[in-house]
Amino acid sequence: MRKLRMGMIGGGQGSFIGEVHRIASRLDGMIDLVCGAFSSTPERSLESGKALLIPKNRCYSNFEEMFEKEKLLPPDEKMDFVAIVTPNHMHFKPAKMALENGFHVVCDKPMTLTLEEALALEKIAESSDLLFALTHNYPSSPMIQQARTMVLNNEIGQIRKVVVQYLQGWLSTSLENTGQKQASWRVDPNKSGIGGALGDIGTHAHNLVEFVTGLKVVELAADLGKFGKNRVLDDDGNVLIRLENGAKGSLSFSQIALGEENNLAISVYGDKGSFTWRQENPNELVTRWLNKPKTIYTPNGIDTSATASSFSRIPAGHPEGYLEAFANIYKNFAIHLNNYLEGEKDSQPNYPGIKEGVRGMQFIYACVNSSENNSEWKKI
Amino acid sequence: MRKLRMGMIGGGQGSFIGEVHRIASRLDGMIDLVCGAFSSTPERSLESGKALLIPKNRCYSNFEEMFEKEKLLPPDEKMDFVAIVTPNHMHFKPAKMALENGFHVVCDKPMTLTLEEALALEKIAESSDLLFALTHNYPSSPMIQQARTMVLNNEIGQIRKVVVQYLQGWLSTSLENTGQKQASWRVDPNKSGIGGALGDIGTHAHNLVEFVTGLKVVELAADLGKFGKNRVLDDDGNVLIRLENGAKGSLSFSQIALGEENNLAISVYGDKGSFTWRQENPNELVTRWLNKPKTIYTPNGIDTSATASSFSRIPAGHPEGYLEAFANIYKNFAIHLNNYLEGEKDSQPNYPGIKEGVRGMQFIYACVNSSENNSEWKKI
Amino acid sequence: MRKLRMGMIGGGQGSFIGEVHRIASRLDGMIDLVCGAFSSTPERSLESGKALLIPKNRCYSNFEEMFEKEKLLPPDEKMDFVAIVTPNHMHFKPAKMALENGFHVVCDKPMTLTLEEALALEKIAESSDLLFALTHNYPSSPMIQQARTMVLNNEIGQIRKVVVQYLQGWLSTSLENTGQKQASWRVDPNKSGIGGALGDIGTHAHNLVEFVTGLKVVELAADLGKFGKNRVLDDDGNVLIRLENGAKGSLSFSQIALGEENNLAISVYGDKGSFTWRQENPNELVTRWLNKPKTIYTPNGIDTSATASSFSRIPAGHPEGYLEAFANIYKNFAIHLNNYLEGEKDSQPNYPGIKEGVRGMQFIYACVNSSENNSEWKKI
Amino acid sequence: MRKLRMGMIGGGQGSFIGEVHRIASRLDGMIDLVCGAFSSTPERSLESGKALLIPKNRCYSNFEEMFEKEKLLPPDEKMDFVAIVTPNHMHFKPAKMALENGFHVVCDKPMTLTLEEALALEKIAESSDLLFALTHNYPSSPMIQQARTMVLNNEIGQIRKVVVQYLQGWLSTSLENTGQKQASWRVDPNKSGIGGALGDIGTHAHNLVEFVTGLKVVELAADLGKFGKNRVLDDDGNVLIRLENGAKGSLSFSQIALGEENNLAISVYGDKGSFTWRQENPNELVTRWLNKPKTIYTPNGIDTSATASSFSRIPAGHPEGYLEAFANIYKNFAIHLNNYLEGEKDSQPNYPGIKEGVRGMQFIYACVNSSENNSEWKKI
Repeated sequence: MRKLRMGMIGGGQGSFIGEVHRIASRLDGMIDLVCGAFSSTPERSLESGKALLIPKNRCYSNFEEMFEKEKLLPPDEKMDFVAIVTPNHMHFKPAKMALENGFHVVCDKPMTLTLEEALALEKIAESSDLLFALTHNYPSSPMIQQARTMVLNNEIGQIRKVVVQYLQGWLSTSLENTGQKQASWRVDPNKSGIGGALGDIGTHAHNLVEFVTGLKVVELAADLGKFGKNRVLDDDGNVLIRLENGAKGSLSFSQIALGEENNLAISVYGDKGSFTWRQENPNELVTRWLNKPKTIYTPNGIDTSATASSFSRIPAGHPEGYLEAFANIYKNFAIHLNNYLEGEKDSQPNYPGIKEGVRGMQFIYACVNSSENNSEWKKI
Repeated sequence: MRKLRMGMIGGGQGSFIGEVHRIASRLDGMIDLVCGAFSSTPERSLESGKALLIPKNRCYSNFEEMFEKEKLLPPDEKMDFVAIVTPNHMHFKPAKMALENGFHVVCDKPMTLTLEEALALEKIAESSDLLFALTHNYPSSPMIQQARTMVLNNEIGQIRKVVVQYLQGWLSTSLENTGQKQASWRVDPNKSGIGGALGDIGTHAHNLVEFVTGLKVVELAADLGKFGKNRVLDDDGNVLIRLENGAKGSLSFSQIALGEENNLAISVYGDKGSFTWRQENPNELVTRWLNKPKTIYTPNGIDTSATASSFSRIPAGHPEGYLEAFANIYKNFAIHLNNYLEGEKDSQPNYPGIKEGVRGMQFIYACVNSSENNSEWKKI
Repeated sequence: MRKLRMGMIGGGQGSFIGEVHRIASRLDGMIDLVCGAFSSTPERSLESGKALLIPKNRCYSNFEEMFEKEKLLPPDEKMDFVAIVTPNHMHFKPAKMALENGFHVVCDKPMTLTLEEALALEKIAESSDLLFALTHNYPSSPMIQQARTMVLNNEIGQIRKVVVQYLQGWLSTSLENTGQKQASWRVDPNKSGIGGALGDIGTHAHNLVEFVTGLKVVELAADLGKFGKNRVLDDDGNVLIRLENGAKGSLSFSQIALGEENNLAISVYGDKGSFTWRQENPNELVTRWLNKPKTIYTPNGIDTSATASSFSRIPAGHPEGYLEAFANIYKNFAIHLNNYLEGEKDSQPNYPGIKEGVRGMQFIYACVNSSENNSEWKKI
Repeated sequence: MRKLRMGMIGGGQGSFIGEVHRIASRLDGMIDLVCGAFSSTPERSLESGKALLIPKNRCYSNFEEMFEKEKLLPPDEKMDFVAIVTPNHMHFKPAKMALENGFHVVCDKPMTLTLEEALALEKIAESSDLLFALTHNYPSSPMIQQARTMVLNNEIGQIRKVVVQYLQGWLSTSLENTGQKQASWRVDPNKSGIGGALGDIGTHAHNLVEFVTGLKVVELAADLGKFGKNRVLDDDGNVLIRLENGAKGSLSFSQIALGEENNLAISVYGDKGSFTWRQENPNELVTRWLNKPKTIYTPNGIDTSATASSFSRIPAGHPEGYLEAFANIYKNFAIHLNNYLEGEKDSQPNYPGIKEGVRGMQFIYACVNSSENNSEWKKI
């Protein structure tokens, strides 16, 4: 095992998610940030890189330059993989170029601007031999892993009902008109794609459902809303969902749920047990059972599964949060990549990848399609 | 003001809701239970009445007998009103007979077995001069009254989104096959009507939305589920809703949400503020605001409205619950009826009545209609 | 079984606890309020009684008159027992007179103004054959009964540590100078005795510890505080406690804990299990175990003991609160008294009585004694 | 600003706190671990270093060797500071040697084995010009910073009461007899000093009180307990405290509070406001006020102070936890040290240091002294 070398595309000053990726990549000491094309303008890329203590010659003006130059560096110096942390419209090109130039990829979600791009990227990735991680971070929370273990162990039984919500309020006002960078690109279809809140957080809710239940959402009926003044993209949505085993559910998301911070919560009900997890207090998994009272699991607490513990770093009662869950993707990616580099080509990823990315884009398209057709049921 | 005399139809031994009505009617010392037709068999009616310390001669064999005999009693002895606490199929007839014989009515929800009965009862009630209360109890919780005040004061602003759920798990198994009385009639369309969980608790969720927002649900798209073995009626449902002002929402209910006890929770989001209330810990109203942090209101706590305080009996920090909220209906009904008896005919009810009952039946029918038509949007 | 007839001393207009006692006595339909000496002035007593629909001739000018006249009434008319809901200095005399005139007693806590009175009352009660209930209401909460069952069943094991607090903030300011009746008498040693917050709520905390553990507090070291301007009595206290089995603990109370409403909370730790209960959300009992995760019990929920269920009236998930717990004392007293009246003299009370009252006064005196002696350990 | 170079003493395989320090040091990308004496045996030190990707020649056999060799390295290569993460008895010697050899120090708490060592170390540190950080991590939690700001702004007013508890249950059984390394040294006075749970977590509670109130605990009365079989050191304690301004309080700690994970909670009550913070859900600060309802602050949430925000890394609703708070010490130490290295000698530390370390040892000694003298009040 050796330290891996990461390049970054995007994440310059003012970026929220860029710093999240950097912290996540540092946390376990397995990855060094060695280069980057941090911004769309060369000056700001350089300035951002400098603040990150990156040598000047590895602060690139754009991602094309980065790939061109990095691939010429000696094997023990050049970056191993790239982290793509730009807005959605700038995912496909750099991801494609990375794969075509032999670099592994960590990419933010949603995977691409369009479903077409997603399917194209899937082909490229599959035909390459390279690793691809998509940062749907919530499944990497220890208590979601615990819930997943319980589903796999048939402790929950046949799943019947799912209630999931992802509620934020930060776009309750026209924040995009104030110059706030995060808001501006998210309400712009050229940068976000056809989904607004849908792509930004609805996809997280969908991904979490499919991960934790292990069941595909096969059909949905969506009612998207645009409440913010002059919004072109949805900023709210309510969706009926049906899972492949016959379970039904309700998925609600919003960025105009005034006062909500990052209220992602999921409840899954089977015929033997059920559970609820809330992202804002992620160190508890509430479980319910046919024949015993409600039971609370905690990371590294009593009876917590070995899998869940492997997504936690410290003893029970010492809260871990968003960054640690995010870091689990980088940690597991780094372990996987190290195995890969050492020749163990059949080790399996335990982080989301291309398939989850395609599912996410399909979910976005099905929701928009349904909503435009009076909430007709649409297959996904 | 004098003590009012109540007769009861239903509520014999083994009934859950009958005892709730009795406790609720006693709590404030304004009502005496004086007679009843407590059961469908004369023997059990007598036995139940005896346990309630009702004189033998006022334990009636059936409601017809009760109305016939009570109306012949002297004015200072005969019952003033009847509480109908039977299963749904036994609401219409006694309510009709009560009104036709000059007795006021408190009736459990849903108001009737069918929409036709509801509309017929509405006519009868309107043409009479008598009072009619429907025990949709949740709006009588002090913190829902607080929320309602905030909406009325325009503190919440224009409402945009509602997320409501009413989740129970007690029908996760085939409880109806074990002889459990509560379960048996609720899964039987002859006694419950066309809605199962929908009629039993979905109507509570719908009623709460309309009460607290003051807005009608004008359209809905429903996906009802039947998960219990051999169930004829729904035991689960997910519903998209649209309110008359353009707000959208999600309404989910279930009696197969394994392990849930009585998890009714509602969140309402406006463009100035938002709030969340959870029935299982009803003494907190979480509110959120554009320009100040999350604030928690409590019954009789600081800044709680006078209206909310009038639905509470004891100082802040002394929890009140389900029974106290239920009792508020009886208390307000008793005050209203006393006013009525003293000739103040224009005092207004502050408890639910016929109109809410009709709305509830319309909601049930619209959900079933939508669900049978592939979740098409249906007007309500 | 018949309906019992209650007289009330105190509880006139403006009283908080009087109305609590009345609601509690009504809730289960076993008791009628038939007479009262509701106030220290005859006019207000009459006025209060009228508002309660008590016949004029049974609204007495003072308790002496009440006992004199009631005892002359026919057996099927005169009151069976008296509820004493006056400030502390007015407990002893009416209790004594009640017992001496053959009336059973329900008395508010603390039992008397002084320890001497308490010991005297104990003698009187013991030499009589009459029933005496003291309204330490918190042990009657279903989840405290559940905890008590677990201790009795040795599920908690050897108890090692107790942490209890009873925090209120309503005397943070000089409320007693505003004419607020509740505040005025509580800060007046002539009406409250030698304990302020200590007597008012410290005794509840102490009583709860002894009830739920079944262990006596044998020694304590107290540091009382007087933070309110010109207060003569304590309004705050922190106490080290030692239980008879060697367990240790911490007991803190306050009425100047600004913003706290009625925050009574207790945690008990044994060598096999532990639990926490919070009065402000009383329908949860959090339990912890050596070999299984944290488990939440609820009234009438799965695995809740039969004893706990007998202190609850409605299905799990339907919150009960302060009034229902208070009513359990009246209910159990009424059952016991009915048994007594029917000749079953050996049925045992399951509500607090004289012994708990004496313990409470001993606790007050030990705390004051310790605090005045630089927090020396004092036996109790 | 440049990346700082850290050496580590202790923290070899099996250590809990060593890994915490490493993660904390990595999180913000300001510090590289470059060398270490990770264990008391050279082999294990080497093995531990190897797993951490430290070059063999900088894995030292013991701390003496580390200081000797590192100080000879070129300025741009040798470590800048040392992190001491050994059990308590191994703090003083390496800290002293570090300071005497020109290395800055980050040291785990409690600062030393004995009070004498603490006072000696204070002298050494003061006479040196070097930086010294002590990892009392809880004050670095954003919501404690928020609370501290409120106290400084006089929003809380004159502080009157403090209730603090730090409850763990992991030593409920004789874990020290099972070979569990963490347990073994903590119950051994040769390695822990005169305090058991007292030194391990009681000091955190004490430190938190003094930090958040800005007031010294001037007097205390302690009752320490030894509940575990054959324990020589306390595993439980209840302490009365008095603050320098006349406030009083209660401090309780335990490692035999069965089932508790890491339940540190503090409530502070002033005459204008009050607050409560719970470590296990650290992203909420509950505040209460004279004239407005309970208000919840969150990291980076509405109205959160700039200071609090500077201890947080991501938007509101994205939970941060134990590691992030711990990392704030390293981050602030790194900024301070960089300033120092760039010649800004008068920048002030915003992390705990020598003074807090001495206070902690004084607290331990006062508690033991009081407890051995029948809980007499002792000055601190």
